[in-house]
This record gives sequence, C-alpha cells and structure tokens, in this order.
Amino acid sequence: MSSPLDPLQKLAEFLRFPSISTQPEHAPDLIACAEWLRELLSSIGLEASVHSTLGSPVVLACTPRDPAKRTVLIYGHYDVQPPDPLEGWTTPPFEPRIEEGRIYARGSADNKGQILAHILGVAQTLRETGELPVNLIFLIEGEEEIGSPHLEEFLREHRDELTCDLAAISDTAMAPGNRPALTYALRGIAAMELIVYGPARDLHSGLFGGAVANPATVVGRLIASLHDAEGRILIPGFYDAVRPLEGWEREAAVALEEAAGGDEAIKELAGVTELVGEKGFTTIERIGARPTAEVNGIGGGYQGAGTKTVLPKEAFAKLTFRLVADQDPAVILNAAEEYLRSQTPPGVLLEIISGHAGAAYQSDPTSPDGFAARKALAGAFGAEPLLLRDGGSIPILATLKEILGVDSYLLGLANPDSRIHSPDENMLVENFLGGIRMNRILLEELAKDS
Amino acid sequence: MSSPLDPLQKLAEFLRFPSISTQPEHAPDLIACAEWLRELLSSIGLEASVHSTLGSPVVLACTPRDPAKRTVLIYGHYDVQPPDPLEGWTTPPFEPRIEEGRIYARGSADNKGQILAHILGVAQTLRETGELPVNLIFLIEGEEEIGSPHLEEFLREHRDELTCDLAAISDTAMAPGNRPALTYALRGIAAMELIVYGPARDLHSGLFGGAVANPATVVGRLIASLHDAEGRILIPGFYDAVRPLEGWEREAAVALEEAAGGDEAIKELAGVTELVGEKGFTTIERIGARPTAEVNGIGGGYQGAGTKTVLPKEAFAKLTFRLVADQDPAVILNAAEEYLRSQTPPGVLLEIISGHAGAAYQSDPTSPDGFAARKALAGAFGAEPLLLRDGGSIPILATLKEILGVDSYLLGLANPDSRIHSPDENMLVENFLGGIRMNRILLEELAKDS
Repeated sequence: MSSPLDPLQKLAEFLRFPSISTQPEHAPDLIACAEWLRELLSSIGLEASVHSTLGSPVVLACTPRDPAKRTVLIYGHYDVQPPDPLEGWTTPPFEPRIEEGRIYARGSADNKGQILAHILGVAQTLRETGELPVNLIFLIEGEEEIGSPHLEEFLREHRDELTCDLAAISDTAMAPGNRPALTYALRGIAAMELIVYGPARDLHSGLFGGAVANPATVVGRLIASLHDAEGRILIPGFYDAVRPLEGWEREAAVALEEAAGGDEAIKELAGVTELVGEKGFTTIERIGARPTAEVNGIGGGYQGAGTKTVLPKEAFAKLTFRLVADQDPAVILNAAEEYLRSQTPPGVLLEIISGHAGAAYQSDPTSPDGFAARKALAGAFGAEPLLLRDGGSIPILATLKEILGVDSYLLGLANPDSRIHSPDENMLVENFLGGIRMNRILLEELAKDS
Repeated sequence: MSSPLDPLQKLAEFLRFPSISTQPEHAPDLIACAEWLRELLSSIGLEASVHSTLGSPVVLACTPRDPAKRTVLIYGHYDVQPPDPLEGWTTPPFEPRIEEGRIYARGSADNKGQILAHILGVAQTLRETGELPVNLIFLIEGEEEIGSPHLEEFLREHRDELTCDLAAISDTAMAPGNRPALTYALRGIAAMELIVYGPARDLHSGLFGGAVANPATVVGRLIASLHDAEGRILIPGFYDAVRPLEGWEREAAVALEEAAGGDEAIKELAGVTELVGEKGFTTIERIGARPTAEVNGIGGGYQGAGTKTVLPKEAFAKLTFRLVADQDPAVILNAAEEYLRSQTPPGVLLEIISGHAGAAYQSDPTSPDGFAARKALAGAFGAEPLLLRDGGSIPILATLKEILGVDSYLLGLANPDSRIHSPDENMLVENFLGGIRMNRILLEELAKDS
C-alpha cells in the first residue's frame, strides 16, 4: 500500500508544467506533463500508459476489468490556455501560489485541479480498500483547449479498451455562490479567423485614403454585420436548428438565477457595470442556452504609441460562435462564411480560416446515473446541486456519445470566480479537496446502478 | 569658398539618423540630427542655430538681411515616420542603399532628400557666386510627423527674425509619371484614438459571452458607423464647411488624371486591383479634394496564433480624418466624438483621445510667386508643371499663413512611387539632383518679383 499523497503538493507539481497546447514551442512541456501523469497514475496502482498522437499525447490509466462491475470513464485534460496577458497576473502563471484558500496558476481550475481531484480520490480509495466499486478508466488528453483535433481518431482506435457505461467529467464550474451543480448542457463551438487583404503594402493614408478600400474599416464593417442592434445574430439560418427551451429548463434557470443572487452578482463576477444581450432571454439563458458570435481578437495597422498615418495592407478578426443543441458547427461555419463574403465590399480580398469546431451537448439529469451524480455532489459538498447549462464548450462530449455510445455527466468543481482563461486563474482549495471526497461517493453510487 | 559637397554622400549621412519623432526613445537621435544640420548649414556659409523646444529642436539658418531683396523662407523637417513593419524592408531602413537610380531609406523622400536638395542648391550658388539673389531663411523642424506641436509657439517667439515674403516648401510629390507639379492644396488632418473598455479583465467567451458587451465588437460597430455603404461619412455636419470645387480645379484634376495614365496607373501605384470611394468624384478628386475618415490601426484581444476564447476587456481603433478647406479640425473632432458617443451601445465605456490636428491649406497657383515656382520646376525638370491637390497634410502651412502672413508654394520633389510612410521608402536620385538645380532657378525667379 502506498503512502498518502499530499494533495496540494501534487497539484503544485502538476501546475508547474506550461502545457499550452496552442503554442507549438510548448510541445516538450506537454510531453513532460503527460509523462508526469503516467507516473502518478501508475504509482497509485493503475495500469497507466502514454499514447503518442499527431499532436499532444493521450494518457490512459485503468483498473483490471471485472465483468461483474460497471465501467466508468473519467475524462480530463492536462493542456491549458496561453497565460497572456502576462501583465494581468499577480504572480507568474506557472508558479502556483496559495493565498486565502485559493490556489492560483494557469490550469488550476481548467482542468488540472479538477482531474487531479478524481485521481487523488481514486488513490485514496485504492489505498484504503485495495479496490474500486467500478471498473475505472482515466482518459486525459492534451489538446482540449485547441478542440481535441486528434482525440476522435484515438477513441476510434482504442474503442474496445475504452468500452464503458458512462463518462464522468469535471471540467465545468459550480453554480454562483459556489453551490454544487450538475451541468446537463454545454454549448458547442465553431472558430474562424477572417483576414482582409487590401493594398500590396501599407499605404500613406493621406496619399491614397479615399480611393482605396481600407482593410481595417472592412473588418469593422464585417464585425458590425454579425449582430443587429438588439444583439441578434444576422447570419441567415443561424437560429434554424436551435432546440427550443422546455418549461422545466426555464424553471431551472430561474432557480439558478435566484441562487446566484440575480444579475447583480453576475455583473460583479464579470466585472461589468451593465449586462446586455439578446432580447427575450434572461442573463442565465443568454449565457447557457443561447448561441452567440463573439470577437476574440482584432488587429491590423499601427499598434504603437501615437499616430501613424497608414492605410494598412491587411487586418484580421478572430471569431468564435458558441452553439446550442442541435446546431451543426459545419453548417454554421459555412453559413457564416457565405454571409461574411456577401458583406465584403469591393476592393479587398477576404480569407476565412476555419478553426476548431464541436457540437453542443445535452444529457438528462433525471436519469439514474444523473441522480447518482447529484448524490455524489450533495454528499461531498453538503447541498442539493442545481441543474445548469454551461456557456462553455467541451466538444469531446459529442464525440464520446458518437463513438463510445455513452452519456457524460458533468460534475463541475471550479469555483464560479476561478477566472478560467484569464489572468489570476484560481481554484478554491475546498473545492479541490471536496472533489477528492466526491470521487469516492460518485463511484459508489454509480456502482449501485449496475 | 568651401569645396563642393558630394550630394549623395551628404544625403546618406542625413538618412542614417533614426530621427523618429513619435517614439520618445529616439529623442537623442533627433538632437544629433539637428546638430548635424546646423553644422552643414554653417559650413556652407549661413548663420545657423539650433533652438530647443519642449519637443525636438528647430534648426534655423539665414543669410544676412539685405533690405533691397525679397525674403524667402524654405521650410522642411528632419524627423521621420516609424519604419515598421520592419519585415517589409528589403534592407534596414536607416542604412541607405542606392539601387537602379533610387536611394532607399526611411526619410529619403519624406523629407530629408527634399530639404537637403534645397540646402545643397543654396550651397552651390553661394560657392559659385558668393551670394543669393534673395534673403534666405531655412526653417527645419523635427516634429512634422507628429503634427508640429511646438512650432506654432516657436514661430510666434521668432516672428521678427522670420519675417518673409513667401514660403517655399518641398514636402510633396511630383505628379504621376514623375511629372513636375505645383501643389496648390493640401488636406488637413485630425487624429483620434478611441478605446472601448468592457469587463474589468479578459473573460472566458463561453462563460460570459452573450450577456456582456464585447469591446472588440463595439469597436467594429463604431468603425462601421463612420461611413455609409457608398463611402460617404455619416458624422453629422462633417461636410458642412467643405469649399466646393471650382470649374478650373475639376479641369486640372482631369489633366492630372490623363497625365497619370488614369485609374490603372493609380491602382498599380497603390498595389490594389480595384479603386473605391465616394460617389460623384474621380479618383484624383477623392484623394486630393475630398475629406476622408481612415482607420490607421485596430487592436484588442488575442493576437497570437490559433484561437483563444477570450472576451477582451478592451479594444482600440486609431483614426485620422483628412480635411479640406474650409473644415475646422477642432469642429470635426468634436462632431466625431459626439457622433461616436451616440453610436456607443450600453455596457462599455468609450474613451476618446484627440491627437494632432491641422487645417487644410490652399494657395493660388496663378499668382506671380505661383508662376515663379512653376518656372523653376519647368526649368529644372524640362516640362510644364501640372497643378495638383495633395491628399497628405502639412498643417504648418496654415500656421505660416496665420503667424507670418505668407503664402506657401509647394514644389514637390518626391517621386510618386516613393513609398512615403511605407517600407522601402525611396527617392529617385534624378529628382534629388533636379531639386538642387531647381533651388537656384527658384530663388532667381522669386527675386524678380520684388
């Protein structure tokens, strides 16, 4: 029997890897992080392996298969978002720091702290009882933040050894007020970058301005063409496949809003003085249940101090669409491209680069496994979980359903103010430790369903 | 009598100073460049001095005053635009290179090559005849590219010693086909930067997108609000003070267009496949005779490779308006600010930083001094000069008129494909050497008017 692991020390080790999947120069850090995970999973008594892909490696770990037991797959990811803007961090993003009950680092909440809680929960059960009540598979990938481009192929190739009854995933957040919640829907995503090319080189805006199309102006006009004045997206057909909200969902949204302290609390979380959005929907619905078109970055022309009277040769905008069931990301990307081309004025060339895409996901929180998940959350955190729709995206859920045929249950451990993808990302230590407790109850409850 | 100077060697020395006025770290280079000019002007027999200002120094040089002679002021500037994007340059921007009859360097055409031609012309006349036919003043400043913020005060303080009959300036370009031209109008300029502030920090676009105003989207919408679909500026009152074009001006524009080889030649110069612009005006008129609103730079959110699903906390756009007689830059900046504020949706904060501003200028090419200038151009370059309106801005012209009470005559020496403000800026050596010849004829012709 191995000796107990210090949970926060292991988490700090995990967080020190700058495993940024979108930046090719970090490939060695991703490999080192995967190897660290394999060693950890092996040391707690699982059969662990690292599998190369065309991108970052996938880490697998499992118990021996007992045909009398149900099989649970726990999915997570060890890659993280880039930390920039670096100047926003109080301390360096890959030097974990604990302060006032929170651990600060890039990846603390998304997703290292959450997946590690499951690993340490399993370690504790194995150390104390020598076995688990279910057959367990850990599937931990390194490309979630770039849309899991190689995971689908991996799942197909390893379909047999990954056969399971359900997937449990902690890669979402608790409800406002840090109340436990079962997430039953996530938005999908479809990313694209548009680049507008104009003159062959930057021009003097005095000598040519007025007679030559300005790519930065065109990017502005294309962005403006995405929404009407009331926040509704103008791409033809964009809303066609959106599944209408059911009555119980709107009620769950109201319960969530009340628990959250209403718009005032959300404003404070977001750091804004005013909320905006599509007419006819509450803030909770706008975030979780409605599709969006967001600009993630714009650039072009002079970026320095003062003025440079240039007519830039090109400009860009990076866009992501968040999708809901049953919008098809490929259909949305095509419709967006067609629409943006129709909105492009003469005199410039529009290039559109489609990025990663994944469908939205919805599962049923009133199924037996749904109730098991709710019991685990209630037991570990001492309060009945709310039911919520998450505005973020985990495209892998649709892939798990398609290839392994299983539903996913989402037991989010991040605190709502964990600043995922932002500077000073953090995770409440109590959530991390509660997650370790939760894993044990979850596996016990899921075992009963067999 | 001093020995002849090698014109290209002196020009290369001048061009090696990275005298970039918009970047504070280059202040020492501006001071060194001013001192180099003073030494040169002194060495050719003028009384030269360097005058500190709150910004870059001003260089003055003059002959002794003979009350029987007319007095000509020649204005130029030794500061240059930033060289970026650096990767666009074939060779480094401050290491001058001569190739196929052109000298390449930042500032070669704007304005070091042009003002140096006048200095070397004066040097030659003084060396050969010992005197000039007029009283001469060189006024060479170091802040033209940032809107000459300290020159007006300098002119007021030195009004007596700067008393003159007219100003001659070479800071414009020849007509297309490198035909000599007298520029009788320049556009004014009014610069502003708009910054849109949203959430207190970058947010996850999934967790908050749809309920929080996106500053990059707002910047896009503000840019789009500047023009209608036909290129007309939508700021209320923007066109109110625009002086209508006279018949002879539209004829001069047609002559210019014919000489230029029409739109095809302008397309090639600009490196575009199509020209666009305001309805009812020719390309030549759009560039020279109509006011514009151009975006010089946009930025905000994620700028790296791939996707980062962020809802940025802020975004910016840098704008310049080009103005024509009799638009008042202050009135235009106020109207633009009021309009942009009216177009700003709720949920964000708009900051507007007004930049440099200068009125448009128009002089009369049919006056006696106008004819003298045309004779100098014809004599030096062997062709009758065209009359043209330049799309660029030299705000100092309005200031010279206001404080010294004189008209300015603009004898541009830059070749039209000199790539002013762009990578690989260059000046034709024949234009530079022709400028030296032209100075001599110009001073002789202007002397006759007395």
